[in-house]
Amino acid sequence: MEALKQVIHNESLVLNNSIIKADTFLNHQMNIELFNQMGQEFLNYFKTPIDKIVTCEASGIGLACIVAQYFKCNVVFAKKEPSLLMVEDYYTERVFSYTKQKESLFSIRKDLLAIDERILIIDDFLANGEALKGMISIVEQANAKVIGIGIAIEKGFQDGGKLIRQQGYDLKSLVIIDQIKNNELFFRE
Amino acid sequence: MEALKQVIHNESLVLNNSIIKADTFLNHQMNIELFNQMGQEFLNYFKTPIDKIVTCEASGIGLACIVAQYFKCNVVFAKKEPSLLMVEDYYTERVFSYTKQKESLFSIRKDLLAIDERILIIDDFLANGEALKGMISIVEQANAKVIGIGIAIEKGFQDGGKLIRQQGYDLKSLVIIDQIKNNELFFRE
Repeated sequence: MEALKQVIHNESLVLNNSIIKADTFLNHQMNIELFNQMGQEFLNYFKTPIDKIVTCEASGIGLACIVAQYFKCNVVFAKKEPSLLMVEDYYTERVFSYTKQKESLFSIRKDLLAIDERILIIDDFLANGEALKGMISIVEQANAKVIGIGIAIEKGFQDGGKLIRQQGYDLKSLVIIDQIKNNELFFRE
Repeated sequence: MEALKQVIHNESLVLNNSIIKADTFLNHQMNIELFNQMGQEFLNYFKTPIDKIVTCEASGIGLACIVAQYFKCNVVFAKKEPSLLMVEDYYTERVFSYTKQKESLFSIRKDLLAIDERILIIDDFLANGEALKGMISIVEQANAKVIGIGIAIEKGFQDGGKLIRQQGYDLKSLVIIDQIKNNELFFRE
């Protein structure tokens, strides 16, 4: 997706050869016009009815809500930490976050996912795929169907994308960064 | 807002006389069509140019992104926990969450808020106002202007809304619940 590549090129900050920051447009400030373009791209790619979008706290939520408008569906986000209010039955999965250096317990209320429901998973970044594997596990615990996975930016030099595709999931990343070298980004064509 | 009252009436779960849950439409599953109606309501009320919407992790983010489309602006959300990637200068404020029973450090990158920028703060719930006070503090640390505050559901039997209005802020809650008694909700007219 050329528009996203351009924004990444202009605005992202390369911290080292494995970390890029997208704070100004994706996961701290959120560029709503760009999110709409991304929603249109996902619709063009998946072209199939979706019952519900699943994402996780926190930076996937905004993109998921904008994308949901293109599929005319609602969004459920996996919660990452316990709350006094979580008194119902939940599907859960343990997920380790490298950037936060801690484990979270992804949780979705059981009655918010139905058997055979057609689910699109949306997230902002894909690196080693830990968060994505957690969301897939929860959807499949519910016997719902992962129809597709839409990611804004995939770090192609980490293993997550390859592993998920090998398992047969229809994973669409709008941009794949294959290498970061001397502060320069190399995109997959 | 009648449509929101109706959904609260039909779908929310009263845990006790001070806690209601809005998991099926507001802060776990998110009803995107309803969020769009809420965006239109906020636009009808505030009727003024807004440069940026500020919200906080996690459940305010989805609503803020949909509302942003009505004001044609972007969203910045306050982060609640540290990350290895947070290497820039941040405005911060300590905020205690009753439902999570812990203190968070709300943080927004300094370069994402500009002097005199016209800010609309959006959040899903208002109870004692701790999160809201944290966001107001951060916006004012940046010398940006809190033009308005838009809340989906205010618990009118807690003090947050009264305190914020006494300080002169233009606070619009789409629904105010004045009392919960024997599982029945009493809305402010």
